[in-house]
Amino acid sequence: MPKRVVIIGAVALGPKVAARIKRLDPSTEVTLLDRDKLISYGGCGIPYYVGGDVADVEGLRSTSAHILRDEIFFRNAKGVAVHHKEVTAIDRKNKTVTTVSVSDGKEEIIEYDQLVIATGASPFIPPLEGVDLPGVTPLTNLHQAQLVKDMISQGRVEKAVVIGGGAIGLEIAEALTDLWGIETTLVEMMDQLMPMAFGKDMSLPIENHMKEKDVKLILGERVTGIVGDKKTGVTAVETTAGTLPCELVILSVGARPNSELAKDAGLAIGALGGIIVNSCMKTSDPNIYAGGDCVEVPHLVSGQSVHMPLGSLANRQGRIIGTNICGGCDQLHGAVGTFCLKIFDLGIARAGLTLKQAKAAGFDAVQAIVVQSDRAHFYPEMELMYIKLIADRRTRKVLGIEGIGSAGDAVKSRIDSVAVLLKHGVTVEEISALEVGYAPPFASAMDIINNAGNTLENTIDGSHDPIDVMDFLQEFKNNNQRVLDVRSDAQTGPFVEKYKERWIGIPQEELINRMDEVPKDEPLYLLCGSGIRSYEVQLVLRRNGITNNKNIMGGIGMLKLTDPDFAPEE
Amino acid sequence: MPKRVVIIGAVALGPKVAARIKRLDPSTEVTLLDRDKLISYGGCGIPYYVGGDVADVEGLRSTSAHILRDEIFFRNAKGVAVHHKEVTAIDRKNKTVTTVSVSDGKEEIIEYDQLVIATGASPFIPPLEGVDLPGVTPLTNLHQAQLVKDMISQGRVEKAVVIGGGAIGLEIAEALTDLWGIETTLVEMMDQLMPMAFGKDMSLPIENHMKEKDVKLILGERVTGIVGDKKTGVTAVETTAGTLPCELVILSVGARPNSELAKDAGLAIGALGGIIVNSCMKTSDPNIYAGGDCVEVPHLVSGQSVHMPLGSLANRQGRIIGTNICGGCDQLHGAVGTFCLKIFDLGIARAGLTLKQAKAAGFDAVQAIVVQSDRAHFYPEMELMYIKLIADRRTRKVLGIEGIGSAGDAVKSRIDSVAVLLKHGVTVEEISALEVGYAPPFASAMDIINNAGNTLENTIDGSHDPIDVMDFLQEFKNNNQRVLDVRSDAQTGPFVEKYKERWIGIPQEELINRMDEVPKDEPLYLLCGSGIRSYEVQLVLRRNGITNNKNIMGGIGMLKLTDPDFAPEE
Repeated sequence: MPKRVVIIGAVALGPKVAARIKRLDPSTEVTLLDRDKLISYGGCGIPYYVGGDVADVEGLRSTSAHILRDEIFFRNAKGVAVHHKEVTAIDRKNKTVTTVSVSDGKEEIIEYDQLVIATGASPFIPPLEGVDLPGVTPLTNLHQAQLVKDMISQGRVEKAVVIGGGAIGLEIAEALTDLWGIETTLVEMMDQLMPMAFGKDMSLPIENHMKEKDVKLILGERVTGIVGDKKTGVTAVETTAGTLPCELVILSVGARPNSELAKDAGLAIGALGGIIVNSCMKTSDPNIYAGGDCVEVPHLVSGQSVHMPLGSLANRQGRIIGTNICGGCDQLHGAVGTFCLKIFDLGIARAGLTLKQAKAAGFDAVQAIVVQSDRAHFYPEMELMYIKLIADRRTRKVLGIEGIGSAGDAVKSRIDSVAVLLKHGVTVEEISALEVGYAPPFASAMDIINNAGNTLENTIDGSHDPIDVMDFLQEFKNNNQRVLDVRSDAQTGPFVEKYKERWIGIPQEELINRMDEVPKDEPLYLLCGSGIRSYEVQLVLRRNGITNNKNIMGGIGMLKLTDPDFAPEE
Repeated sequence: MPKRVVIIGAVALGPKVAARIKRLDPSTEVTLLDRDKLISYGGCGIPYYVGGDVADVEGLRSTSAHILRDEIFFRNAKGVAVHHKEVTAIDRKNKTVTTVSVSDGKEEIIEYDQLVIATGASPFIPPLEGVDLPGVTPLTNLHQAQLVKDMISQGRVEKAVVIGGGAIGLEIAEALTDLWGIETTLVEMMDQLMPMAFGKDMSLPIENHMKEKDVKLILGERVTGIVGDKKTGVTAVETTAGTLPCELVILSVGARPNSELAKDAGLAIGALGGIIVNSCMKTSDPNIYAGGDCVEVPHLVSGQSVHMPLGSLANRQGRIIGTNICGGCDQLHGAVGTFCLKIFDLGIARAGLTLKQAKAAGFDAVQAIVVQSDRAHFYPEMELMYIKLIADRRTRKVLGIEGIGSAGDAVKSRIDSVAVLLKHGVTVEEISALEVGYAPPFASAMDIINNAGNTLENTIDGSHDPIDVMDFLQEFKNNNQRVLDVRSDAQTGPFVEKYKERWIGIPQEELINRMDEVPKDEPLYLLCGSGIRSYEVQLVLRRNGITNNKNIMGGIGMLKLTDPDFAPEE
């Protein structure tokens, strides 16, 4: 008798497992079960469907060769049976699942030799009054997506509120604003966007960019209720910062693993509610695998168990499960949370731990921010790129990386090349000498990633005494310390004019001869375009006994991005 | 007395060492010696200067803040003395160097505590008649660059010949053709471009692209002489494939390490003529360091000693030497030869060993080529990207990677994220599950790099029986085997029309029901858009006892790139 594999859930991981099994061992009988008719789609594409980049839902349900991934496709092209059934129970002893047909309600017991749980995650629905009103919805499946796009395309939405400032919230806010011109407000409880993924210093530039693109942001405030009536739908969202009239509310406040079935069957469940799996993606039952959004994975930097609902992770795990079911021994020891995002004209990416997370995990974490052009500085077209590198002071091991820039592929490139090393426990020194490719149209000879390593080394070794731009802005507003700006006179001029005696301009190359103009008995902030020349100046000052100063990390580049109003108008 | 460090050579590594030392230990007395007045420039920018992207030579000599890096800059901003002197001998016993002033010929003995040899490399001048004619020149320093640009901008060049098909030869060919419209012919002795960096299968698309951009390529032929007279200059290049009239000849046939000084001083020299250094960048004399284009480094995949004249490597080594001179213990254990290049609209990148190099180094090397869109397939804008992954069959360790695509940053991103892992000896399985960032505007959920790992795994495990496009083209022309094309009827149609009975079209999803149409007793080539569906078809055929077939790696995508004339006209 052929081996029977039953897979519960047919969105991302499920179909991947099925396809892999049929490739490795076509004699295996594979059954995919899902309560939804719409299966095997690119959920990450939903914001692009809503925003208009993807014309219809079929675009997200098709292969790259434009073939619809429906039941017929799975049967004919993959040899996999798909049943439109909900699974209500797992009987581990008898190795069966109880299913209920969605079309006729009939119950059926299906036997398995090996079972795969790919039940995904459900959007968290905040316990708010009015959360069930028409026009209030999460945006995580195709039905919701279709509903929202219909509302919009019928001209029924002038104002929208997105609740939650995570990656998906941001993508949706862009989708609503960019093509449809909907007046969109994003409300986030924390005082920054994407608090789980970025430090606040890196989130500020993202916030400024979104504001520039006409997304309204309300941060550090809570939604207290949703107003409207069952017939006409939502009319407003009430927050601690006032009432926001709207016709559409998107809930994107995170997802919870769908682990009830597993839990009811007595499988081990983690503290975050996800199914616990080992590195072979096996649950606590040797005949049951699980993967995708319904499991927890070890974080390869912190060692903690985390829930990472990422489509890319689900796909990779799916292949591993398929291999192992067919007798292989593929392993995935965890993840570092690499991810990237395009928000309007900004590419952003990250991996590992944020500074805050690293400190919470017990590391003596320290960070460096480097600003550098994304091409050789003599190359005609270029934009600034912003990279933050985080490491442990004692072991010098790299803990995390964050990046922002207008050339998204270039940002992703830097983040990925450090992300893949995090599990190998590399030190800052390895990043300083990281052998990434160089050609003037793509990078500087000393790549920004090398310079991030260099700067962090210098900071750890104590030769660099930096201050974050955010802290600088705070302190500059609240005290009377002065800035020593070592850029050219032409660049410094407008700042001296704006900030008068609080701004001292001495070009770096003139410093040695103008040392008497440097105030010796007061604390100073050192500034240049990117933080590199002002670092050199810090060393020169130190050599001359002037040590009471801080170098502004990322220089004017980071300053302009963090607070566009700080620089004089050009 | 302060420590005295003398550095011979002030182009890339020398200045980097000097700056690093002064940052770490300002009390050190650092002297930079160079026989050229023009120091500290971005040599990799020369093609961009010649091609017009960089307006003047100063652009390559300036910092990112547009400050000229001349003697005065080094004195004032860095505290480093620069002397315009040639070093004629090193006296290791007395720790001195003998120098000759370039301006007045005066000899001077300079003492050092630590010496850094940064003498770089010299372009190889082939022993050809006429190689010394006016208008025949390498293009590796600013003087040559200025000379060539002057010739061009004065309208004195209608036709040019570039000798050598390495990276620099390609960049120069683009520079001459693109802006200036010079009729440019590139002659390369080997039968492919960049034979040291790419397999022939990956170089063919680059060749086709260059031809499309009007660069004439003569491959597999030798230059036999250069014709002209001392007064009017070069008039033609003679090759085994005929005479090429021209007014400009650029020699770019490689570089040789400038190690004579070191050799005369009795330092260890490698088989390739480069200075031998340890992982701290020390030569066989503990008081002498060396780095940059004049040294050999261990290849971290093959273990062999290699000469890698790369600006990026020189910069990273420079910092390490500076650190170590100041008492640190930074190490660089070798390199994997990561590099990238933009040629017209094509971004290309590579790292590690080519298949040929891997086999020569004793590996049981095997490769996979994957073609995939550089964005999620449902994202509106996208282009195909081509990745080749090479691994050892027995250990499954990754040995090399090559990539091509129109989004250069995206190609670099994939190559870099594997390049940095090569020294860690990772397996193909790690690449299959590599945790790189995913968002629809930047990648597919299963990144092309993951799919490259998958495909190579399948090939090593024997479930995938591929054929290179190059081999397929050869065989298709020389025998009567047929192609089974599993794309849609619309896509297959024109091919069936062109190749008649040699082309069989059965869409993948119809295959199971049309199995009787598949020839069973003859060898077949399987084809789809990228090689993935045809791989699935290969498995289905195998299941049905049909095993005499090969899957064309990279499918139609790779086929079109390799031989643009193969596909029917659209």
